[in-house]
Amino acid sequence: MALLRSYVSGGWHTAADEGAPLHDAATGEEVARISSKGIDFAAALAYGRRVGGPALRELTFHQRAALLKALASHLREHRDELYALSARTGATLGDSKFDIDGGIGVLFSYGSKGKRELPNDTVYVEGNVEPLSRGGTFVAQHIATPLRGVAVQINAFNFPVWGPLEKFAPAFLAGVPSLVKPASQTAYLTARLAELIIESGILPEGSLQFVAGSVGDLLDHVTAQDLVSFTGSASTAQKLRAHPAVIRNAVRFNAEADSLNCSILGPDAVRGTTEFDLFVKQLVTEMTVKAGQKCTAIRRAFVPASLLDDVAQAASERLAKVTVGNPASEGVRMGALASLEQREEVRRSLKALLDAGSVVFGDPERVEVVDADAERGAFISPVLLKADPERSEPHEVEAFGPVSTLMPYTSTEQVVDFAARGGGSLAGSVVSADKEFVRDVVLGAAPFHGRLLVLDAEDAKESTGHGSPMPQLVHGGPGRAGGGEEMGGIRGVLHHMQRTAVQGSPAVLSAVTGRWVAGAPRTEGVHPFRKSLAELRIGDSVVAGPRVVSQEDVDHFAEFTGDTFYAHTDPEAAAANPLFGGIVAHGYLVVSFAAGLFVSPEPGPVLANYGLENLRFLTPVKVGDSLTVTLTAKQITPRIDQDYGEVRWDADVTNAEGESVAKYDVLTLVSKEQP
Amino acid sequence: MALLRSYVSGGWHTAADEGAPLHDAATGEEVARISSKGIDFAAALAYGRRVGGPALRELTFHQRAALLKALASHLREHRDELYALSARTGATLGDSKFDIDGGIGVLFSYGSKGKRELPNDTVYVEGNVEPLSRGGTFVAQHIATPLRGVAVQINAFNFPVWGPLEKFAPAFLAGVPSLVKPASQTAYLTARLAELIIESGILPEGSLQFVAGSVGDLLDHVTAQDLVSFTGSASTAQKLRAHPAVIRNAVRFNAEADSLNCSILGPDAVRGTTEFDLFVKQLVTEMTVKAGQKCTAIRRAFVPASLLDDVAQAASERLAKVTVGNPASEGVRMGALASLEQREEVRRSLKALLDAGSVVFGDPERVEVVDADAERGAFISPVLLKADPERSEPHEVEAFGPVSTLMPYTSTEQVVDFAARGGGSLAGSVVSADKEFVRDVVLGAAPFHGRLLVLDAEDAKESTGHGSPMPQLVHGGPGRAGGGEEMGGIRGVLHHMQRTAVQGSPAVLSAVTGRWVAGAPRTEGVHPFRKSLAELRIGDSVVAGPRVVSQEDVDHFAEFTGDTFYAHTDPEAAAANPLFGGIVAHGYLVVSFAAGLFVSPEPGPVLANYGLENLRFLTPVKVGDSLTVTLTAKQITPRIDQDYGEVRWDADVTNAEGESVAKYDVLTLVSKEQP
Repeated sequence: MALLRSYVSGGWHTAADEGAPLHDAATGEEVARISSKGIDFAAALAYGRRVGGPALRELTFHQRAALLKALASHLREHRDELYALSARTGATLGDSKFDIDGGIGVLFSYGSKGKRELPNDTVYVEGNVEPLSRGGTFVAQHIATPLRGVAVQINAFNFPVWGPLEKFAPAFLAGVPSLVKPASQTAYLTARLAELIIESGILPEGSLQFVAGSVGDLLDHVTAQDLVSFTGSASTAQKLRAHPAVIRNAVRFNAEADSLNCSILGPDAVRGTTEFDLFVKQLVTEMTVKAGQKCTAIRRAFVPASLLDDVAQAASERLAKVTVGNPASEGVRMGALASLEQREEVRRSLKALLDAGSVVFGDPERVEVVDADAERGAFISPVLLKADPERSEPHEVEAFGPVSTLMPYTSTEQVVDFAARGGGSLAGSVVSADKEFVRDVVLGAAPFHGRLLVLDAEDAKESTGHGSPMPQLVHGGPGRAGGGEEMGGIRGVLHHMQRTAVQGSPAVLSAVTGRWVAGAPRTEGVHPFRKSLAELRIGDSVVAGPRVVSQEDVDHFAEFTGDTFYAHTDPEAAAANPLFGGIVAHGYLVVSFAAGLFVSPEPGPVLANYGLENLRFLTPVKVGDSLTVTLTAKQITPRIDQDYGEVRWDADVTNAEGESVAKYDVLTLVSKEQP
Repeated sequence: MALLRSYVSGGWHTAADEGAPLHDAATGEEVARISSKGIDFAAALAYGRRVGGPALRELTFHQRAALLKALASHLREHRDELYALSARTGATLGDSKFDIDGGIGVLFSYGSKGKRELPNDTVYVEGNVEPLSRGGTFVAQHIATPLRGVAVQINAFNFPVWGPLEKFAPAFLAGVPSLVKPASQTAYLTARLAELIIESGILPEGSLQFVAGSVGDLLDHVTAQDLVSFTGSASTAQKLRAHPAVIRNAVRFNAEADSLNCSILGPDAVRGTTEFDLFVKQLVTEMTVKAGQKCTAIRRAFVPASLLDDVAQAASERLAKVTVGNPASEGVRMGALASLEQREEVRRSLKALLDAGSVVFGDPERVEVVDADAERGAFISPVLLKADPERSEPHEVEAFGPVSTLMPYTSTEQVVDFAARGGGSLAGSVVSADKEFVRDVVLGAAPFHGRLLVLDAEDAKESTGHGSPMPQLVHGGPGRAGGGEEMGGIRGVLHHMQRTAVQGSPAVLSAVTGRWVAGAPRTEGVHPFRKSLAELRIGDSVVAGPRVVSQEDVDHFAEFTGDTFYAHTDPEAAAANPLFGGIVAHGYLVVSFAAGLFVSPEPGPVLANYGLENLRFLTPVKVGDSLTVTLTAKQITPRIDQDYGEVRWDADVTNAEGESVAKYDVLTLVSKEQP
């Protein structure tokens, strides 16, 4: 490999200078050179806004989701090539899968969430219609629309594939183009990823730009419509957050900084319990996966004071079995740090930590390695320390490598306090079978954490582990962890959108959102169940009834269904019910009769009623009441991969006085065309 | 009035010096003096965290909501006193009501939202349970818990009552104590408000602190668990956002800055239409209410080029009728600016605007006033300008007074672009009866706005107007508007809480959230419908059935209800249905039979089934299928003001193969005690 290329403003860019060398973490050989010299960053941002944004905004959420899925499949085809390159970063095959398969998994997850949880539309409608007036002519609805800028994504060296993809997927799904800048050390892997993506032609042009090397003056050009997301050190996060253009334009800034994450062993989990073993095993795993270079790795392991020696011994025994060496070699469990500079950094941090504690396992200066040269490669031994938790260093100094510190605690309250001393963490874990202890620790530690894992015998087999962020769950944490939040399913999509409260008449809100809003005009005529998706419009409705509910109906329904609840069957007891004051018809009778009224029986475009939502019985139905139902098409969602789609109907059942007795949404599947 | 007092660290503090004078906006007389000298701000923050936070966190959301309501009622009793003091800020009675009644309305709104939309609990559970494993032993749930710090609230001079209350209410409801610091100019009104609140004894001690005067070194002491919310000028917002402690600790920072909000007249709204009149009337109202000192006021009025002269003339006629003068005098429509300094500031900005335009109405240097001295009081005439929208000044220079600029546009695309040139606004409005135009403008302008109002003949009577933030709706905007978001109902509460993804087994999630999670243990025994709220526990369940669905059942249900949809009645047509392939039982039959199975008919604690949620029919029920239903108590919410509460039940109807055929939540009202 020679000089890494960038992809900006619609073309591949090769730097105007020779670039700086990047080295194989295990052998020290030069892998590639890197430079962004000559890139016009203002132009790149402008290109993203001008070309990428509009192209993405033309697509619906479902269309974008389908592209993410296609991209995931494409990358999966090229996994082996990426694994091979990944080994040069010091990663074992397991580490590489964590990074590469993990990243592809994020694309699949957003592809699937986008289809299931977002509309097949370009506008996101959030929450309920808010009534703002008695008469109902003035209402509001929150919507979310994509920001018109570029999502600038500055990633860390430790996850050259997962890092860029976990930021890119939600931005793309939101309709916002990305500009991806990986950390230099491992940028050759991200560069290959970017080539695979761009050369696939799957994504609309302009939706992804890639910069190998420094971002130069890029941040000087960000506007209020751009976003900056950063993963890396706390000190760089602070610098970026305080950048004059970020401050001046109130640019959305998100940071994930590596934090001093903790794992807590419960007092119940003495030696011999499943949870004791789970704790020790997880601790060693978190220390050694990616050679401990994970923002989420366990840095602080709190154990009951009485179990400290047991844990130290058990962990040391496990650590002794970890083979360190050439990540490409068979049997090697832990590879190298990403660079010799990183090793120096880790050793410096270890010195500070050793001021407050002592070594339990490992030697910061010496390690036995397999198939490698321990000095030319960035190898280091796993190092387990123990320390006094009243000292500040273990809560503040992070050694970003295979390093953890054991600390004792003596009460639940104390360990919650210790956990908080990290000043904000991405992830924490509690290993215990004692539900009360777990509840107290989780609720006590929650304000300081973005994610908390509870590990016990019950979930251990299926648990994804302390250190694995999941696309469904928020990733981020307060304070030291950067104060940011990424992913979390659709939440991460909304981070890239502007939330706007729209106020107006129901008719206006319907026009803006494409969903029928109660109070907006209805269109009667052909029964809407006779219309295919191609013919149906929101507001199409049918008014059916009336049907009088007789005493016989109520009696019969009670007998037929077995629902003989006293309010339907015993006049005296029903009279004493504080809410009814007499016999009432069954709620299920009301909705069943309503269905009988609004149905259009013959075969047609409506295929099935697959559900019902937000049903509320608002007024008791008494014998003699006459029911009318109004059914109105509220939301129409064609599926892009089926010949049918979903139609949500507003159902309003009223009595002779015009009061609503029941309101709900009926969910149906309807064919795109007439059968 | 003498020196304003602060309330910090549990006591009233009088400054150690003489303080600076505050003047009556209309007369120039001294109203009070202000200083915070001698306050130990680090101690005040520590006090809030140590005393206020724990006291609030002991209360449930419903208890906090009830206190907000009680506080609102208490303040309403003292409105007249506040109105009188408010007049000294230059506010007319109408202006004062906007501020004071508006603020009290926010308390009522949060009191009501807290009760309706939050649980009677201390933990907020957000979104669905996220499945993370095939076997279902490893799942996740997002929760939100109150931050453990203090919400530092720095307010603007223009809303001395509404400003503090709109920030305080969501913080309080979240369980986070507030430290309120008003702008000096009008702080005597906020000081009286604070006295009324604190002396009422309604709130837990420590939940509200009040600082009259500068915040000194307060910001040096904020941590990652504190929040800083600011309303005021864009330049101060930038300074606070870049404060070293805010940056270092990634402190949650929220800003609302006054922005160059626009109002857009539709091309359909020619002279003579209702919308033309609405536009002109609203423009004049927004210019003159609070003498135009509203962050949300209309600064830029875009009208079709062909209507510019008509609008200028109609607006001038209306403006000519606005009486300026002593705000306490009868017939005065517009009072004074908050101070002489503010008037100088407005005149300076007007000079810059006049470089790019000309005066349509008013004289920046001269105004006729009623019952007042135009020079000693901070009076100024409403000033309407017109300008070339291609110039930058009208989009960038804000005169924070009764000043607006008319500008012409020629196409929808162009006016959307002009709207965006404000660089981010709190609020915008569109006045038009043309739904297509409205949709295009709203969706085009949304990424640049926190709130958009559509005004037309239909909603005009009930509309709350362009300039009124509503507690239900987000208040904030991107870029120039500060990039923040406040209120928006429960969203504003969540801004004060940490979102945490909790991963674990269903049993662990149930223990942590207090809600039963599918897969967690169930307890069978006494039928749970026989248990009062005092006896019922989550997980209590009943398994009922089986009941076989016969052909007669399906035929009979079709006939009885009238639901003769072909999939239930016509074997041949049903066989052709791509989803069923044969006769299926009605979904309503399935849920009716299920109710018949799980019911416990005799009078008891269960009072009513008031609704049903998230019903999905998962597997078609065929003739001969036998149904079993499992009902499990999922969530128990006692009402604090009733002798009953809500119980949400998980209902799972299964067939003989154990497949779920229908899943839903049943909502019931249950007595706290046995009847």
